Amino acid sequence: MAVAASEKKMAIHRAACRLFRQHGYPGTSVRQIAEEVGLDGSSLYSHVESKDDLLWEIVHEAAHQFLSALREVRDSNLGIMQKLRNAIITHVGVITSDMDSAAVYTFEWRHLPPGRRTAFTALRDEYEGMFRALVDQAIRDRYITAKDAASATLFILSALNWVSTWFKPDGALSADEVGRMLADYVFDGLRRRTA
Amino acid sequence: MAVAASEKKMAIHRAACRLFRQHGYPGTSVRQIAEEVGLDGSSLYSHVESKDDLLWEIVHEAAHQFLSALREVRDSNLGIMQKLRNAIITHVGVITSDMDSAAVYTFEWRHLPPGRRTAFTALRDEYEGMFRALVDQAIRDRYITAKDAASATLFILSALNWVSTWFKPDGALSADEVGRMLADYVFDGLRRRTA
Repeated sequence: MAVAASEKKMAIHRAACRLFRQHGYPGTSVRQIAEEVGLDGSSLYSHVESKDDLLWEIVHEAAHQFLSALREVRDSNLGIMQKLRNAIITHVGVITSDMDSAAVYTFEWRHLPPGRRTAFTALRDEYEGMFRALVDQAIRDRYITAKDAASATLFILSALNWVSTWFKPDGALSADEVGRMLADYVFDGLRRRTA
Repeated sequence: MAVAASEKKMAIHRAACRLFRQHGYPGTSVRQIAEEVGLDGSSLYSHVESKDDLLWEIVHEAAHQFLSALREVRDSNLGIMQKLRNAIITHVGVITSDMDSAAVYTFEWRHLPPGRRTAFTALRDEYEGMFRALVDQAIRDRYITAKDAASATLFILSALNWVSTWFKPDGALSADEVGRMLADYVFDGLRRRTA
């Protein structure tokens, strides 16, 4: 019984993710979410407290996935440039492993109510800070040249965040290939080197 | 009288842009837009047909600004790499000249009703196609090396589109400096060259 309830809750999460991504959070009703999982609106409320809670659980869970993946990269025994490369590939990996959730994390978080919005941006800032610390170390160790660590980090994360809008799971490139391609573009740039 | 009506309509557009950016299109009511410009809801309707129309006019106008700026770059008498560099600086310039409008263009267009959505994506595809043609020429002329023109174009535009979320008009860098910095990052990459 507990298992069935938990499965239903996961189905509700997946449906909410898909709808929030497609129609935006304010454009999605509890009724639509309930219909997607074959419940009526009032039955849905026996599984979730509110639409707010669903958004919070989705972006909170996504934030922790990004954070724990990046912590693992940071704490690995690799050189700083290989760590940064893996950070990019891992970020693309987290996005592509659940595109709906990544899109909601990236685009819909601003619809959180004020308190949770603050809690969310703290998690996102923690992630960006951890990423920036890697970039900063690569600058200090003279592997990277950039105006500053902050702008270089924004450049990298901007280029990566859009992946949730164009990656096709059945496309020509795997998630890992997209990650490695973007790492090459970020570190080596597009300009051809003269030999 | 006609001038006053047109000024009111511009104020409505600016208010709608600001609110759509802040709360998202579905999260903004006609009443909120009216309040921002000191009208009641029904008076607003003497200036605009519907909230749909406002979104369409904003993203349509923005699409044409991006297109006409890029056409000018494409038709200039410069070498292909200088054109691409200017395309990046110009794109950042269009974003920063009206951050609200650029954010609505980038993030809110999907709330258009189906017919206008198709018309909008045609304009956006035209823009991406024009950008990709420049990248493609730079690849054929052996200035740029990339997996393909499509992925390189997505990489560039992704890195640029996020500017509307972090650029500060009163920050340390001007719009032009941000454009040139991003062009350097895109073409030369972050990795330090050994001399």
